[in-house]
Amino acid sequence: MKVAVMGYGTVGSGVVEVIEAHKKSITKHTDGEMLEVSHILDLRDFENDPHKDLFTKDFNDILNDGEVKVVAEAMGGVNPAYDFTMKLLKAGKSVVTSNKELVAQKGLELLNTAKENGVNYLFEASVGGGIPIIRPMDQCLAANNILGIAGILNGTTNFILTKMIEEDTAFDEALKIAQDKGYAEKDPTADIEGFDACRKVCILASLAFGKHVYPNQVETEGITKITLEDVSYIASAGGVIKLLGQIKYISDDEIAAFVGPAVVFHPSQLASVNGVFNAILVRGDAVGDVCFYGQGAGKSATASAVVADMVDAAKHTERRKIFGWEDGNENYVVDYKDTIKMPFYVRAKCTESKAKALFDEVKFLTRKGQPSDEIAFITDVMTENELMKKLEGIELIAKIKVTDY
Amino acid sequence: MKVAVMGYGTVGSGVVEVIEAHKKSITKHTDGEMLEVSHILDLRDFENDPHKDLFTKDFNDILNDGEVKVVAEAMGGVNPAYDFTMKLLKAGKSVVTSNKELVAQKGLELLNTAKENGVNYLFEASVGGGIPIIRPMDQCLAANNILGIAGILNGTTNFILTKMIEEDTAFDEALKIAQDKGYAEKDPTADIEGFDACRKVCILASLAFGKHVYPNQVETEGITKITLEDVSYIASAGGVIKLLGQIKYISDDEIAAFVGPAVVFHPSQLASVNGVFNAILVRGDAVGDVCFYGQGAGKSATASAVVADMVDAAKHTERRKIFGWEDGNENYVVDYKDTIKMPFYVRAKCTESKAKALFDEVKFLTRKGQPSDEIAFITDVMTENELMKKLEGIELIAKIKVTDY
Repeated sequence: MKVAVMGYGTVGSGVVEVIEAHKKSITKHTDGEMLEVSHILDLRDFENDPHKDLFTKDFNDILNDGEVKVVAEAMGGVNPAYDFTMKLLKAGKSVVTSNKELVAQKGLELLNTAKENGVNYLFEASVGGGIPIIRPMDQCLAANNILGIAGILNGTTNFILTKMIEEDTAFDEALKIAQDKGYAEKDPTADIEGFDACRKVCILASLAFGKHVYPNQVETEGITKITLEDVSYIASAGGVIKLLGQIKYISDDEIAAFVGPAVVFHPSQLASVNGVFNAILVRGDAVGDVCFYGQGAGKSATASAVVADMVDAAKHTERRKIFGWEDGNENYVVDYKDTIKMPFYVRAKCTESKAKALFDEVKFLTRKGQPSDEIAFITDVMTENELMKKLEGIELIAKIKVTDY
Repeated sequence: MKVAVMGYGTVGSGVVEVIEAHKKSITKHTDGEMLEVSHILDLRDFENDPHKDLFTKDFNDILNDGEVKVVAEAMGGVNPAYDFTMKLLKAGKSVVTSNKELVAQKGLELLNTAKENGVNYLFEASVGGGIPIIRPMDQCLAANNILGIAGILNGTTNFILTKMIEEDTAFDEALKIAQDKGYAEKDPTADIEGFDACRKVCILASLAFGKHVYPNQVETEGITKITLEDVSYIASAGGVIKLLGQIKYISDDEIAAFVGPAVVFHPSQLASVNGVFNAILVRGDAVGDVCFYGQGAGKSATASAVVADMVDAAKHTERRKIFGWEDGNENYVVDYKDTIKMPFYVRAKCTESKAKALFDEVKFLTRKGQPSDEIAFITDVMTENELMKKLEGIELIAKIKVTDY
């Protein structure tokens, strides 16, 4: 079967390599049919590439080739990926992608278009890179009500936080190391401000609860304000700070979804996820907690998930019904600050007795070099708005959510 | 669609409950078709059970009911489960199970019979209880060559080892606590001698490498010889002892598969799997390490995996091709002691200088109350047979494999 790859960056070139290196396992899964890359779309020149004869700069070469049945979109970004994907689906070709931005923004439309045209739109690689999560979650869903999801969804920020936690490296320096190693881009905004994790939360929430969640519905906070002082206080209580995407079921008509730093205590499985690794914890009413761990990015890991989707699309000429969800509405994602109760880590210029007077329970934390006018503590369970009200008039230095995962 | 449940023990009764509690999510996955339990097979009487009208003691009631399309076998053991399953498959009914003993012993025959009769034989719940592992592994396999698998596959032994590691409880006492809590059976042999983990290794190996592996091909050692002294030495090096099932790819014609205690070092994901939890780590050439974590047993967790399989069987009238493997041969699983190189933990009555003379590298370990004539160390990498040869004439107290997972 002829297949095409759009975008020859890290993921796209990885897809071509993985297909070539795994002919045997692929054909085992397709009943003998080989995936043959017939076109690679990229505007750049790759004159010394071994696949140079396959390149085209004209999208129509792929669109108009009736023999191309499956296309991997590895271009990234919403445009022109959205336009190309729509045209391909309407032309009866299945499309698979690792493009979380596109799925988070336009997934509903693309899934509906795939359905109308009897083809597949698959995006296992868009969340958790090579970690199987989209299909396993669907499997869990068949006999569970999902109560919540918490994920370390961005490898770059997890690398930075790990450096801060394990090597006492300050944020700016840790970011620079991540950039030097190629884990963070020159403009690291999408990672460190949590936008990348936000897109993945949208995809997970849409799948888990059946209604599309858009990035602007998910309150998102990055890791730029995390300091070594906070890391140190939290370590004294056996915890670590992770950038978590969290989704909570409230009712069939309401969920909460938010991204931000969160304290996780050992021995939670999420607490020992280090470096560029990702993990997604799904809490079901029957299965309890299940957790999926692996490389959330990286050329061959992500490419292997894209290729697995290509194999799946090649096997199934009819549309698989499992990957679909409905439209949500603007009130579907509620303000977590008003609805979700949790403990908080608080650092403030304040006295211990004042803190004790404000909260029912406070667990004080310490750190080396702690100034005499600074305290840090974990509160009892409350909403973030309740917390902020209690803290009115206090000189707050930092607050971080504490998870129950 | 009518479905039947055979065996009304922990898992079987859980299956009935999960179906009743998740009608909505089930019908979402079956395009509106409800699973309706029409028969429950059990030889015991359940006069006060709310489903008492559904019970039968005659297997033929299920076999001969043409409307029953999917049957959950939750009887356990090889007989009569094997006979019943064969008859059901031949009668054109799909069968799903959590029965690892049956799949490990007779999986090949049952899968072939299912294939011949155009129905499904599914067993997601047979490994890792509620953890999705069989399908995700199949997904990984499409674009990866699996290099190895390591799993904490038995919750009872992991509970006992966790008690030993975290609370300094001796093996006998920890076993008694596990029995009191209902985690271990009155006769705990299958768990503590590793037989249960061995069956799961057989299923994982068969699926991962495409040839059936039988329990008698897997060298299996339990945890009864593990002492608090070993736990303590290994803790001093940042490690823990886990009962691991391990599978290693050698070539397309040879694998190694073995079950036994193994040292895992933090921060491996496997090191922080505590209590009755299970985890399975799969190492692929493209995806790297992925790890699946959750409750490996327990009524509703296991039942939710069985029900997910029932939903899958109900959706797919044709046989799913993915769950099949070929016959192996007696030389397919090689003796790991002669082929797999790894470091070992050794405890012996011996001098340090003698140990240094025997091995290229030794990392000495210590413990509180260590006798002056006892040493413990981690060796360099070698096969178990090479190790035993070097240790000839030494008074060996304990040796434990060290993993690279």
